[in-house]
Amino acid sequence: MAKVSVGSVGSEKRKRGQRKRGQRDLPALVYLAGVVTVLSLTLNGVLFFRFHSLYRSSAPCGGAAPAEASDVGNAAAAFLLTSLWRGGNGSDGAKGVCLEEDEHVKASPGGARQQIGGSTVDCDSIVINLDHGDPTMYERFWRAMEDQATIVVAGSQTMSYFSRAGSLCWFMEPRLEQEIVRLHRVVGNAQTDGWHVVVGTGSTQLFQAALYALSPPETEEPISVVSAAPYYSSYPSVTDFLRSGLYRWAGDVHAFKFKNDAPYIELVCSPNNPDGFLKEAVLNGEKGWTIHDLAYYWPQYTPITAAAAHDIMLFTFSKITGHAGTRIGWALVKDRAVAEKMTKFIELNTIGVSKDSQLRAAQILGAVSDGYELGGRARFFDYGRRLMAERWQLLQEAARSSGNFSLPHFPSANCSFTGEMTQLLPGNLIPLDFQYRALHFCSAHRWDVECAI
Amino acid sequence: MAKVSVGSVGSEKRKRGQRKRGQRDLPALVYLAGVVTVLSLTLNGVLFFRFHSLYRSSAPCGGAAPAEASDVGNAAAAFLLTSLWRGGNGSDGAKGVCLEEDEHVKASPGGARQQIGGSTVDCDSIVINLDHGDPTMYERFWRAMEDQATIVVAGSQTMSYFSRAGSLCWFMEPRLEQEIVRLHRVVGNAQTDGWHVVVGTGSTQLFQAALYALSPPETEEPISVVSAAPYYSSYPSVTDFLRSGLYRWAGDVHAFKFKNDAPYIELVCSPNNPDGFLKEAVLNGEKGWTIHDLAYYWPQYTPITAAAAHDIMLFTFSKITGHAGTRIGWALVKDRAVAEKMTKFIELNTIGVSKDSQLRAAQILGAVSDGYELGGRARFFDYGRRLMAERWQLLQEAARSSGNFSLPHFPSANCSFTGEMTQLLPGNLIPLDFQYRALHFCSAHRWDVECAI
Repeated sequence: MAKVSVGSVGSEKRKRGQRKRGQRDLPALVYLAGVVTVLSLTLNGVLFFRFHSLYRSSAPCGGAAPAEASDVGNAAAAFLLTSLWRGGNGSDGAKGVCLEEDEHVKASPGGARQQIGGSTVDCDSIVINLDHGDPTMYERFWRAMEDQATIVVAGSQTMSYFSRAGSLCWFMEPRLEQEIVRLHRVVGNAQTDGWHVVVGTGSTQLFQAALYALSPPETEEPISVVSAAPYYSSYPSVTDFLRSGLYRWAGDVHAFKFKNDAPYIELVCSPNNPDGFLKEAVLNGEKGWTIHDLAYYWPQYTPITAAAAHDIMLFTFSKITGHAGTRIGWALVKDRAVAEKMTKFIELNTIGVSKDSQLRAAQILGAVSDGYELGGRARFFDYGRRLMAERWQLLQEAARSSGNFSLPHFPSANCSFTGEMTQLLPGNLIPLDFQYRALHFCSAHRWDVECAI
Repeated sequence: MAKVSVGSVGSEKRKRGQRKRGQRDLPALVYLAGVVTVLSLTLNGVLFFRFHSLYRSSAPCGGAAPAEASDVGNAAAAFLLTSLWRGGNGSDGAKGVCLEEDEHVKASPGGARQQIGGSTVDCDSIVINLDHGDPTMYERFWRAMEDQATIVVAGSQTMSYFSRAGSLCWFMEPRLEQEIVRLHRVVGNAQTDGWHVVVGTGSTQLFQAALYALSPPETEEPISVVSAAPYYSSYPSVTDFLRSGLYRWAGDVHAFKFKNDAPYIELVCSPNNPDGFLKEAVLNGEKGWTIHDLAYYWPQYTPITAAAAHDIMLFTFSKITGHAGTRIGWALVKDRAVAEKMTKFIELNTIGVSKDSQLRAAQILGAVSDGYELGGRARFFDYGRRLMAERWQLLQEAARSSGNFSLPHFPSANCSFTGEMTQLLPGNLIPLDFQYRALHFCSAHRWDVECAI
């Protein structure tokens, strides 16, 4: 007890002593807390001052929380349901569509009813822009990945015309080339070792650059440019709009009067726009060149069955990640002289390619690769494939319910990227080009029953 | 005294009471300070988390303090001195220059001595790239203005092909158009009311777009494209590289076999590249078109004497603010049909213009206008004019000291923008194009004395 008592007295003394010391230490603590607070507030101020101007410009990326997969899926489905069957439901509400070819987005005037094929449709309820595609379907994904996909371009950055003075493609940002090569390695869809990379203002510019590079410069007759029908509707117009003396559109390769010793350029789009099927070159002439447009050869659209290794392969950023407004494409070119001449075309045409867009493309392609190589959140191709599959299913339901159309059956194959048996899901057909072409074709031929392209 | 004493006793009591209350309040103060600290640290954390990914990408813009005018001036002079007379001084050290046309930046191998004109020069000491211009001279200014000129592009921003669906130039960002119109109003160098704005991937693309738009589509013979010599060296190559059936380069306007009823396109570059003088159209045919290239019609290069009001006026972002890597230009077009056809050219050529670059151009042009309209720091044209004047003076000294060259005298005029009598200071000649042309011309003609172009 005494011990306890003594102990108790002693501890009481210690407590009193601690209280006194605590009381004596309190001003010091307040002082310390004050210093920490001031330092912290100063840091607040510095951070705010450093970034407030950026914050003003970055409103769109503020506050976006990563979306759950199911949420994203539902949203995609909801979006498609809204655009395909506004006011209806997935399987029963389809009333038809109105063709709007002249304007980008336009309400049908007065809700007039139009005759398409054999069916009358209610234009008041549904308006779909069928003039062109616009890959904004991935926007939601990138909103959830702002922290990995946002770039800052400082006022004094990339002011020069040059990115790598003295190199083959002197206006190409080294970081973009690295990320392009890396992404092809990650996906396994194209060989890059031994190929030259040429950047372009979208792949359309690169297509023209390739025509320029492959055309014999001193020829009397323009070289013939052909492709197997059905082909991308822009090929003829882009080839011929300047009435070049170097090259000329010659139409369907199957109707082409092919001479073995005559030069030609064959365009091979695989997966093909507009029909979605995989394609190979038809001609094999001695003096022929082939340009492979591989815009859709990515895992969300098709199984990756081999690393492509063609002489000229075109890719476009817009179809990979959906960033069409950024206008970036690239070519993988086997022959150095051809790559140099393609670079020359871009120099003469636009004196290089926007560096801001190159930096942005590098950042976003890097985020996609990070998702698979470093275990990042941005597993973009998984998302894209799920979205394509959902849309394809909805389109099939729409076609079935309309009774006027059927859709082609696309094959499946082992995909080396996913490691699974996957189906070809043609991105260019969903939901725009195909519908347009299907409806247009049927309307033109006055078919009102099954129509398969 | 008593009063004092009482007062003293009372105040001592109050002090004791305050000390006691203070001691009692100290834990509350510590608590309060702790709360503030935690809140502040949390805010720091939020700010850091919000911006750390941006900060990683924005290294170039960190820590740049606004440069003093004298510092900027000295730096510009130092730069020019270094590049013109590495190892020498302004008036005595000039030894000559080596022409390097094939590569962008290349050391002269082995310090070989070259014969240029009649003088032997020491290539070991000085190497200047004379193949082309690159307007990086404004970089220092923009480094000091990062807070006003930096942009953030979020991952989900500007993904669509379209900026203003349904408008004439459907791929043009509205903010860019606003800032273009605003800057022309601030500077007073071009009329915009009643003109259509078409954006391009640099003005080179717009030049081709204008040729396409002005060429009669069904003509047998390509329309002749002419310009008064000396003309910009790219005009002939850009006009003819695709051997278009629509237009063809026809050379110097003074040597052109002009027929009053025959269509033609005359290019007028004013101030002119390469000679720097102001130009006007030479021909006035009934079926003729004129394209005015006003790349250098800005206050740092020339007095602004009137708001230009030509049918087609081309401007390029690179020559205004030095952002050549951004690849943005615009055309002011009087005729709607011509503007529409120019837009069509850009659609076929590159499916629009990079939106990232458009947003950047809008931000930077806005900063320039802010400097004059809102009293911001970025009084860009003041800086540019001072820089041009310093360089021009140095070039004059270099020409004088070499004894081989003289420079033309440029006229002065009242500038409506500065409100002062200012001299024409041709930006395209300083320090690259002019030197190249002067040296090349002299070398070709084996002149080793005075040479004035």
